[in-house]
Amino acid sequence: MSKKIVKPAILPGFMELIPNEQILFNKMLDTIRHNYEKFGFLPIDTPVMERAEVLLAKGGGETEQQVYRFEKGDTDIALRFDLTVPLARYVAQHFSELTFPFKRYHIGKVYRGERAQRGRFREFYQCDIDIIGNGNLDIVNDAEIPSIIYSTFKDLGFDFFTIKINNRKVLRGFFQWLGIEDSTEVLRTIDKLEKIGLSKVKSELEEQNLSKDDIDKIVEFIQIKGTNEEKLESLKELKIENDIFLEGLNELIAVNHYVGAFGVPKENYTIDLTIARGLDYYTGTVYETFLDKHADIGSICSGGRYDDLAGYYTKQKLPGVGISIGLTRLFYQLYEAKLIETKDRPLTKVIVIPMKDCLDKSIEISNILRENDINTQVYLEKGKLGKKFGFADKLNIPYVLIIGTDEIEKGKYTLRDMKTGEQTMLSIEEIISGFKNDEI
Amino acid sequence: MSKKIVKPAILPGFMELIPNEQILFNKMLDTIRHNYEKFGFLPIDTPVMERAEVLLAKGGGETEQQVYRFEKGDTDIALRFDLTVPLARYVAQHFSELTFPFKRYHIGKVYRGERAQRGRFREFYQCDIDIIGNGNLDIVNDAEIPSIIYSTFKDLGFDFFTIKINNRKVLRGFFQWLGIEDSTEVLRTIDKLEKIGLSKVKSELEEQNLSKDDIDKIVEFIQIKGTNEEKLESLKELKIENDIFLEGLNELIAVNHYVGAFGVPKENYTIDLTIARGLDYYTGTVYETFLDKHADIGSICSGGRYDDLAGYYTKQKLPGVGISIGLTRLFYQLYEAKLIETKDRPLTKVIVIPMKDCLDKSIEISNILRENDINTQVYLEKGKLGKKFGFADKLNIPYVLIIGTDEIEKGKYTLRDMKTGEQTMLSIEEIISGFKNDEI
Repeated sequence: MSKKIVKPAILPGFMELIPNEQILFNKMLDTIRHNYEKFGFLPIDTPVMERAEVLLAKGGGETEQQVYRFEKGDTDIALRFDLTVPLARYVAQHFSELTFPFKRYHIGKVYRGERAQRGRFREFYQCDIDIIGNGNLDIVNDAEIPSIIYSTFKDLGFDFFTIKINNRKVLRGFFQWLGIEDSTEVLRTIDKLEKIGLSKVKSELEEQNLSKDDIDKIVEFIQIKGTNEEKLESLKELKIENDIFLEGLNELIAVNHYVGAFGVPKENYTIDLTIARGLDYYTGTVYETFLDKHADIGSICSGGRYDDLAGYYTKQKLPGVGISIGLTRLFYQLYEAKLIETKDRPLTKVIVIPMKDCLDKSIEISNILRENDINTQVYLEKGKLGKKFGFADKLNIPYVLIIGTDEIEKGKYTLRDMKTGEQTMLSIEEIISGFKNDEI
Repeated sequence: MSKKIVKPAILPGFMELIPNEQILFNKMLDTIRHNYEKFGFLPIDTPVMERAEVLLAKGGGETEQQVYRFEKGDTDIALRFDLTVPLARYVAQHFSELTFPFKRYHIGKVYRGERAQRGRFREFYQCDIDIIGNGNLDIVNDAEIPSIIYSTFKDLGFDFFTIKINNRKVLRGFFQWLGIEDSTEVLRTIDKLEKIGLSKVKSELEEQNLSKDDIDKIVEFIQIKGTNEEKLESLKELKIENDIFLEGLNELIAVNHYVGAFGVPKENYTIDLTIARGLDYYTGTVYETFLDKHADIGSICSGGRYDDLAGYYTKQKLPGVGISIGLTRLFYQLYEAKLIETKDRPLTKVIVIPMKDCLDKSIEISNILRENDINTQVYLEKGKLGKKFGFADKLNIPYVLIIGTDEIEKGKYTLRDMKTGEQTMLSIEEIISGFKNDEI
């Protein structure tokens, strides 16, 4: 053939899985979705591309340089780089059609042209939930969020993880009380404590021209220890007379109480005064979630409360609280760390292998199995029996149903357990009830 | 506020749904996926963007002008415009990791910068299945495909639809026998019979410089009537001595037989010799599917057999057969025609409304309901009872569970059926078993 062959390869920084990995990925995604729906969140789906003017209304920042942006005809187009900006635009645009508090989930791909590096992806799934109030939103919502994180990660198969909770008002009020007017930089620094350690935090704070006394107070503050209740007590005892601080403290007390009421075990959440979240738009409660034995993976689910979701698109005041799971990166990390495995997750329960002249009967039986909601395929190619078993084996299909003239005469078919090699002669009814009752 | 407000709007030609529509859309998507999995198809997911060189390897054609294409850094990038080209690249790239016949499904968004018009979308979901053989692929696979179409559209709630089946070898052989060397143009014309009518087909054929005799034969051929068996008999009786024709006829006979074996009722499939599919790459069996009472919607599911999936990426010969459902357009058409409705499809089964001082208990009960896999939300905002009922009503949530001090004392809670207004006092156990047994 003289046709030019193009090398089949995807771009660097993109994830593509082979089917058994994809099945595992999809199961995780389904589990997340199932949990989001269980708590009453409604689905939305927005276009991957929007007018650049809309997606970049907020402008500036690191993100803008990473955005995939191009012109088509006269239109300046950008690909979404998160699901929060599209949510803000969505809520503003469809305001009159929505019911508030608006609880929405959104699972979709987002795009960032980051520098390619291990574990960073230019296309990745975000799985977001947000609760948006019209004008105001009760603080108890901030306590429900950790219970959704808890429920989701339990269902994903994890037991040992900690949801770290803080409130930026507590931090902001504290800094204001110290006389630090613009606390943004301080917050950014403190947020990095886990990553860069205490001494680097100190030196960064020094670079910000804070007094030694202030730095000591900050360090003392962010190192408050004990149970959640003890920490809250210590915060009270600081006798900080600042309205923002006190508001934040009361919120934190409420959130701590209701997170318990929502059924999150004590060992799965903790108040951590170092958590600030680098993003500017969080104004109250903030969350990060870590696997206890794999802190190196970083936060696996983060979010928080914001005062004003959609100020760039509407004059409506829309406070909200939400979280995001970056599933593509999470999957990559868990898979690399061998914390998840692709084994034994076939979608197909049984493959029917027809012997010579038994294709019609084999097809008929596969129809019956599928009518009973048993995922079934028929091996339709010609070839030796060994090859057909090999096919089932490679795809990890747990059962093979062999249909030959003998079987058809008897009305009983040979079901082979591919793990044990055991073969049993069963009627269709026995096979169906066996699968339904998980006996085979 | 002096901040500039950007008008919140999406680009023309994009579909965005409000949540109750999105729920319906997702249910359709889930039904399609469920059916694809039931027949043993494996999921894949490919990047939305790839190197333009890869996606446009085939080059030329109408499609290329519609492609979203841009540069980022040094890279010439295109967004995928279908799921077939990415499949070809995927199979070539991962060839050694796949098991053949490779049955894959892929549900994802694709992009075409078409001229904006009603019912045409620039971003739309395709739901594809393909079975790819390594070197060869048995014709019985071509008969399984209609059974998947049948199963899927039945599950989507349709009873009256017809899968039209043809074989391009039959057409090609027939034209070769007539002495028409390049039948591509003739095929394109014939494929339009349903759309443009017989007389326009005739005049188009005349423009292609065919003899009157040939045109008469073609018209007679594509108008063969009767049952499938009668049509096949008429084709045999034409005594066309052409190998391609005879090969196609034998394939069509086999497909017709096995489609029946796969359980598709006679009234849901028919051999239609006018179906050719405009696309060049189909080489054998072709399918189109129409709603019997809404032929104006056009084909709702199409596809066919091709000899060589991935010739631009590999020297491996990879024949395949597959179909695609363009879900975004289908949803739009069905919704416009009021053939699908958003009513009564809430994801949330029950909303718990706490009376004064009963929030903790309400949260506790919602936890228990969710642990029993009942989608439950708690109304967390303060406000009057009427407003809370209004919330449940607007979201079509079928049940409200009212929890007050009376209820807590009695251990029985007021469950209100939002449709009938009927209220019953029930214990948690009664509520759970009621939901589980679909009694409430």
